[in-house]
Amino acid sequence: MTRIRELSTPAAVIDTERMQRNIDRMQGRMSNLGVSFRPHVKTSKCLPVVKAQIAAGARGITVSTLKEAEQFFEAGVTDILYAVGMTPDKLPRALALCRRGCNLKLITDNVAAAREIETFGKQHGTAFEVWIEIDTDDHRSGIRPDDALLLEVADALQGTGARLGGVMTHAGSSYDCDSREALLAISEQERAGAVLAAQRIRDHGAACAGVSVGSTPTALSAAQLEGVTEVRAGVYVFFDLVMRNVGVCAMDDIALSVLTTVIGHQKEKGWAIVDAGWMAMSRDRGTQRQKRDFGYGQVCAEDGAVLEGYIMSGANQEHGILSRSGEPDDRIAERFPIGTRLRIMPNHACATAAQYPEYQVLRPDGGTEAWPRFYGW
Amino acid sequence: MTRIRELSTPAAVIDTERMQRNIDRMQGRMSNLGVSFRPHVKTSKCLPVVKAQIAAGARGITVSTLKEAEQFFEAGVTDILYAVGMTPDKLPRALALCRRGCNLKLITDNVAAAREIETFGKQHGTAFEVWIEIDTDDHRSGIRPDDALLLEVADALQGTGARLGGVMTHAGSSYDCDSREALLAISEQERAGAVLAAQRIRDHGAACAGVSVGSTPTALSAAQLEGVTEVRAGVYVFFDLVMRNVGVCAMDDIALSVLTTVIGHQKEKGWAIVDAGWMAMSRDRGTQRQKRDFGYGQVCAEDGAVLEGYIMSGANQEHGILSRSGEPDDRIAERFPIGTRLRIMPNHACATAAQYPEYQVLRPDGGTEAWPRFYGW
Repeated sequence: MTRIRELSTPAAVIDTERMQRNIDRMQGRMSNLGVSFRPHVKTSKCLPVVKAQIAAGARGITVSTLKEAEQFFEAGVTDILYAVGMTPDKLPRALALCRRGCNLKLITDNVAAAREIETFGKQHGTAFEVWIEIDTDDHRSGIRPDDALLLEVADALQGTGARLGGVMTHAGSSYDCDSREALLAISEQERAGAVLAAQRIRDHGAACAGVSVGSTPTALSAAQLEGVTEVRAGVYVFFDLVMRNVGVCAMDDIALSVLTTVIGHQKEKGWAIVDAGWMAMSRDRGTQRQKRDFGYGQVCAEDGAVLEGYIMSGANQEHGILSRSGEPDDRIAERFPIGTRLRIMPNHACATAAQYPEYQVLRPDGGTEAWPRFYGW
Repeated sequence: MTRIRELSTPAAVIDTERMQRNIDRMQGRMSNLGVSFRPHVKTSKCLPVVKAQIAAGARGITVSTLKEAEQFFEAGVTDILYAVGMTPDKLPRALALCRRGCNLKLITDNVAAAREIETFGKQHGTAFEVWIEIDTDDHRSGIRPDDALLLEVADALQGTGARLGGVMTHAGSSYDCDSREALLAISEQERAGAVLAAQRIRDHGAACAGVSVGSTPTALSAAQLEGVTEVRAGVYVFFDLVMRNVGVCAMDDIALSVLTTVIGHQKEKGWAIVDAGWMAMSRDRGTQRQKRDFGYGQVCAEDGAVLEGYIMSGANQEHGILSRSGEPDDRIAERFPIGTRLRIMPNHACATAAQYPEYQVLRPDGGTEAWPRFYGW
């Protein structure tokens, strides 16, 4: 049995008790609100994690790449929403999945792509299920709920090569919130926009069964989800410092951390140098513009206890610089001698996890287990 | 034969003509300066790239992880400098490499680690070759050339379990330069500091054969390298926008770019949305504090031609937002219709390359070839 103290560093460590608590919290909330839950697997890209989400009650998954769709379909998941706008060059891969029995849902927000999908489907004897992406918060992609374009795209999906499955939206600007009021407001805006878009399509005479919304902050904040059929969220499974600053998790909900070893010091500067740099943490500085900046991460003891005030204040490729916020610690070399093992909570779990071929999972019996993770497109 | 227009996006594309030019330029410079060149393979983590560096005249390699050492040793490279401070927990892996015949060089900057290495070597009948890390620019790790600690560490390496191979330094602050004068000054500071440290060790009565310096900016700027035996540099093999801003390469020297497809628009904002987000580019925003901020990258046509003024101004996990610097382009949807294929030059090649399991290499005959790349620790 490999224990945490025997793991080679840096390593991406999952606290499974916390992860399971996060999964149960989200699924319980969705069940109470009377909607299906379709987790976004881009965060973990790891089968045992997704199995735990499905075991808790998730219905289908959301993916951000066709590789995720292919990998999870191979593992037995059949209901998959590919939540990035479809382009013509990817249609052959989507077709291959559909022909093997995958219930794949594509998305689009424009007439050109809608027509390409429909034409390609017709040519290959497949009716692709397509959802229309709605822009409910002006932050990225999608059609505004009241835009005339919405009905043009719905019309473009009425051929034999495509069928309209529903509308979907992601209020990504919820990541900018940090108050209960703001979170409630953006959640309702996301819900209302998606429901309005679906209603306009139905009033136009087309079927629009699905109404899909979600982000971790809005999923955990919405007061009611009338008219919504399903919710999507990803990062909640691990949580991170950005979500802690948004206000939807506590520090001790964060289930992912990076195990690292102290390799040196610059005593006069109050620095400890560790073997986890930005390659191990990612370059994500998501807390930089939030109410509390954690640098590249929050320093914890090897057992996970938060070491208040100590952060990774700088990072090179394979070197991290740990220091105390505010006044430098002139005894940092005594506090963290060479060889000290620490854990760093990340700003953004999706970005940090992506740097690792596998997770090291802490089991309740004190042992660890490696869970493989994939990457690429 | 797969042509670039048939590649699935996003993809990490290498222009081999540029790469070879970059390799030849660096090796030619090192030969003229009369020093060995030991490329840092952390940038590519790719055997064909390293083979091209060795074919051009490189002597040995530098690595940032033991995994790199293991992978390249397996592929036949025997002279390897592991350029991150050694910790006790990694000694068994280092020992295994030495026993298989690897000429592995470790580094340290403190007495505690030096003693641990020596003791472990003695216990296992191996004399580890250890180099002392010198801090020549106050930016990260290492011992200052005039610090008394230098001789203590040298003494700690005089047992049967270790032998002092030399001194090494990396003036990472050269990345902050943007003038010829500043680059010349930091290069000389790096050289002089390393040479002084070696001289102090020799005056102390110990052997100190190797004097290793380097970073891409200093390697390309040093006027003379008297007393230096070898130079290390990594990112020069691909170059990137940060190096362009530092002033050591031109835009058309950048050999790595990310191939992407336009998936949507927000016309009123002058945005084109592409299928390369920060997962494809990395979160590195290295040009943010430089004289020219390229956002997440410089937009180019599929053939590599720079589209002046267009940058990736924003990025989500799998979505990139392209826009024109300054005044928004209200005709961006006509300029870059759905399905348009573009290439994005990265801020930092080491970070961008790390996101990909393989490179797509453009061959002179117009075909492409996949070169595998590894990651992890």
